[in-house]
Amino acid sequence: MGTRRIDLNSDLGESLGTWRLGDDEAMLEIVTSANVACGFHAGDSLTLRRTCARSAERGVVVGAQVGYRDLAGFGRRFIDMDPDELTADVIYQVGALDALCRVAGTRVEYVKPHGALYNAVVTHEEQAAAVVAAVVALDAGLPVLGLPGSAFLRIAAAAGLRTVVEAFADRAYTPEGHLVPRGLPGAVLHDAREVAARMVRLVTDGRVTAIDGTEVQVQADSICTHGDSPGAVELARAVRDALTAEGVEMAPFTR
Amino acid sequence: MGTRRIDLNSDLGESLGTWRLGDDEAMLEIVTSANVACGFHAGDSLTLRRTCARSAERGVVVGAQVGYRDLAGFGRRFIDMDPDELTADVIYQVGALDALCRVAGTRVEYVKPHGALYNAVVTHEEQAAAVVAAVVALDAGLPVLGLPGSAFLRIAAAAGLRTVVEAFADRAYTPEGHLVPRGLPGAVLHDAREVAARMVRLVTDGRVTAIDGTEVQVQADSICTHGDSPGAVELARAVRDALTAEGVEMAPFTR
Amino acid sequence: MGTRRIDLNSDLGESLGTWRLGDDEAMLEIVTSANVACGFHAGDSLTLRRTCARSAERGVVVGAQVGYRDLAGFGRRFIDMDPDELTADVIYQVGALDALCRVAGTRVEYVKPHGALYNAVVTHEEQAAAVVAAVVALDAGLPVLGLPGSAFLRIAAAAGLRTVVEAFADRAYTPEGHLVPRGLPGAVLHDAREVAARMVRLVTDGRVTAIDGTEVQVQADSICTHGDSPGAVELARAVRDALTAEGVEMAPFTR
Amino acid sequence: MGTRRIDLNSDLGESLGTWRLGDDEAMLEIVTSANVACGFHAGDSLTLRRTCARSAERGVVVGAQVGYRDLAGFGRRFIDMDPDELTADVIYQVGALDALCRVAGTRVEYVKPHGALYNAVVTHEEQAAAVVAAVVALDAGLPVLGLPGSAFLRIAAAAGLRTVVEAFADRAYTPEGHLVPRGLPGAVLHDAREVAARMVRLVTDGRVTAIDGTEVQVQADSICTHGDSPGAVELARAVRDALTAEGVEMAPFTR
Repeated sequence: MGTRRIDLNSDLGESLGTWRLGDDEAMLEIVTSANVACGFHAGDSLTLRRTCARSAERGVVVGAQVGYRDLAGFGRRFIDMDPDELTADVIYQVGALDALCRVAGTRVEYVKPHGALYNAVVTHEEQAAAVVAAVVALDAGLPVLGLPGSAFLRIAAAAGLRTVVEAFADRAYTPEGHLVPRGLPGAVLHDAREVAARMVRLVTDGRVTAIDGTEVQVQADSICTHGDSPGAVELARAVRDALTAEGVEMAPFTR
Repeated sequence: MGTRRIDLNSDLGESLGTWRLGDDEAMLEIVTSANVACGFHAGDSLTLRRTCARSAERGVVVGAQVGYRDLAGFGRRFIDMDPDELTADVIYQVGALDALCRVAGTRVEYVKPHGALYNAVVTHEEQAAAVVAAVVALDAGLPVLGLPGSAFLRIAAAAGLRTVVEAFADRAYTPEGHLVPRGLPGAVLHDAREVAARMVRLVTDGRVTAIDGTEVQVQADSICTHGDSPGAVELARAVRDALTAEGVEMAPFTR
Repeated sequence: MGTRRIDLNSDLGESLGTWRLGDDEAMLEIVTSANVACGFHAGDSLTLRRTCARSAERGVVVGAQVGYRDLAGFGRRFIDMDPDELTADVIYQVGALDALCRVAGTRVEYVKPHGALYNAVVTHEEQAAAVVAAVVALDAGLPVLGLPGSAFLRIAAAAGLRTVVEAFADRAYTPEGHLVPRGLPGAVLHDAREVAARMVRLVTDGRVTAIDGTEVQVQADSICTHGDSPGAVELARAVRDALTAEGVEMAPFTR
Repeated sequence: MGTRRIDLNSDLGESLGTWRLGDDEAMLEIVTSANVACGFHAGDSLTLRRTCARSAERGVVVGAQVGYRDLAGFGRRFIDMDPDELTADVIYQVGALDALCRVAGTRVEYVKPHGALYNAVVTHEEQAAAVVAAVVALDAGLPVLGLPGSAFLRIAAAAGLRTVVEAFADRAYTPEGHLVPRGLPGAVLHDAREVAARMVRLVTDGRVTAIDGTEVQVQADSICTHGDSPGAVELARAVRDALTAEGVEMAPFTR
């Protein structure tokens, strides 16, 4: 079992000037990959620069958390953009963050869509293709992180990109291996011990217990955790500790 | 005289979505260096991507026209920013534009502050140093373009950056070789023939006639022209044509 | 027929700082109602103030052209907003514009959604209801301007608002009386003489010739015209002149 | 002394979408006047609407906390705006907030500049006059809240506006009765008991102990408190409790 390894990722750098969000310091001690915001839905330049610098110091890999241009909505509202505009916006965001990485001695090493864009590219072929086009244009060696079975990862793979799939530590799964939609009862898990045990099972066994009690196979190269509340940080730490205790190696998927 | 050469620069890529500004197509046939906006005071991502692509096709060198984060004010209002914030904003902007350049087969090859930031760094030591710090952190090989005698170029030179000085085709000069402040009578020149003759004189002789009729030495590696009105484009073309007729070679200062 | 009257409306105040859009001066001589932007998708405060003042001077009625918060997209991209957020955004926009009106000696006298929001509320019940809720909360005496048959006007009428329907001068109609979707051949009309004749027919006869040559009844309290290009202004003027020549009175629908 | 009364004011409504700032619920139980942000430096429409509604429920008077258009800087960076632009921006902001107030059954009852604008109008005559011009144009019956001795209040008084002066609960004063500039040692007070005692002294006696130990007269119609940290809320509550215990009536200055 000692040979198992997994990546833990989380959204970081989501503050905006005076407004602080999430406990980035705490999460940088837990995760191995940081999805750092790029300024369109969150993150002022100075926050982003500091987040990249802290990630570099901690050896945490930085990915570009690209999103819609919508600060007031935190990128959580679908915007029906022209694909050409979306491609350009993604190139812009990745380039901006990569510059802030470079001055901090690191680089953007992967791309992960955020919020409503993340959800959109699960099924929205045009927007999925637009994000993929941006990554291909920038650097066909950049992996993309997303949901197993999504249009995004399918189109990315077809374009020759490395695709990395993630599971969600605090989410329930359907018997088909999909996420139970937020809003349905039981969709979000809060018990740190239970969540940690589920993730150990996922990594060592490739299965989780679905919401109906059946066992379902779930594939994951990375586990997504959150840091936007004290409880969320606790939960993320519990996942890491349980995995480590089980001899699972925590390592960025890029290594 | 055939050995003389000069660069012509102009602000491009300053449209925002539906709002168009300037005749970029016309100017790309005239200038050798394009100061392309970076999205903070002007320029949506798609406009910028296209401007970079057209510049690359035309062999026009791209520079990053960095400015304050102020779309409503077009970067023309001084903002009393913290130097750390300004440095991070400049890194962000140059990185974003450079990514759009790279996917178009070119690169950001120099940095020029825009609008109120351009004016501020003539005398504002902290902001000048903040912009210089950004360029040094990004790439100490990137030249900066600015006003002769400015704090910006002095600090940039001290930091080891290549500094490039520009003259303004359509502006009157004081006997001391400074620009006559906008708003004073005669500060802005409109006669294309006169402007063209002045620029020939500047390039071949190193002098222009000051507003009081005296002759004044003006140093210039580049001439700044504008494309935001039909008259401005005419004037820029007249400058280029007159210089070419005189055997002056038009070439980017980066070559 | 001399007793016939009609309103002409157009989008105004859509500039943003340095970026100018449309010939507001020309259009204020043509239209009787001005849909003035409110700052979320277009219009800086000073532009809006001046547009309200000029409208008041000309006796042109001001309506609030409310839209999505999306300057880069000019409000032309659907945003999947929470209805509560949309209601608050509409109240905010109408209130802001009304203040600028009041200092200019006029008031906001109606509300018309703009761009993608205009299109959304044709069928999107939640967003339509959200806009209606804002108007009802603000002033149940404010009429709303929209597309005949839209969810927006149906919900508004049910809420007790006065609903005002508009026809589009430069658009072709289907045999069912709907707009031929932009992008289909023949959807947009460019011939000023033809457009003017169609609008005379519409006002005096209640009919236009549909794209298939059949006659179709179209109801209109107002005719929407554009001023964003020289040709558009020409076309609007031709409509007004033809209607006036036919003895149709031009008057705001609010009078 | 039972006849003494004072107003307590605080900045509220400063969240932006997902980003929360300050404990508005707690502060609404303490203050009598709420300076509610207007969307330019803080406050999305829905947050503002809810803050106005909660203020109305609590009987807390709402004032418009107007500021520079600078979300990334939270309005804390001076912007060298044209006075006409500033006047229009202030009218826009007050109008927007007043609409959100009206749908909540209350009104904007005063205007207070925020952040860098607050500081600017202490000495910047043009910007002070620009804010005053906006209030005069909107409603010459609206009081303005500011710093004693400021250009803002002097110009406002000369324009016929009612001017209301405030003291700062948590700030040290010079022997001349000015605020000790932030950044100097001892400028900000943190001890709730000391602060409360000072404010009792100020209200009942018109004096505070200056930073050098001398007694200084300070005039105040309102006391400014903060709610952006647990400690700040504690301190505000201590001030209120101490004043109440001393028989001082808490009441909005507008009543």
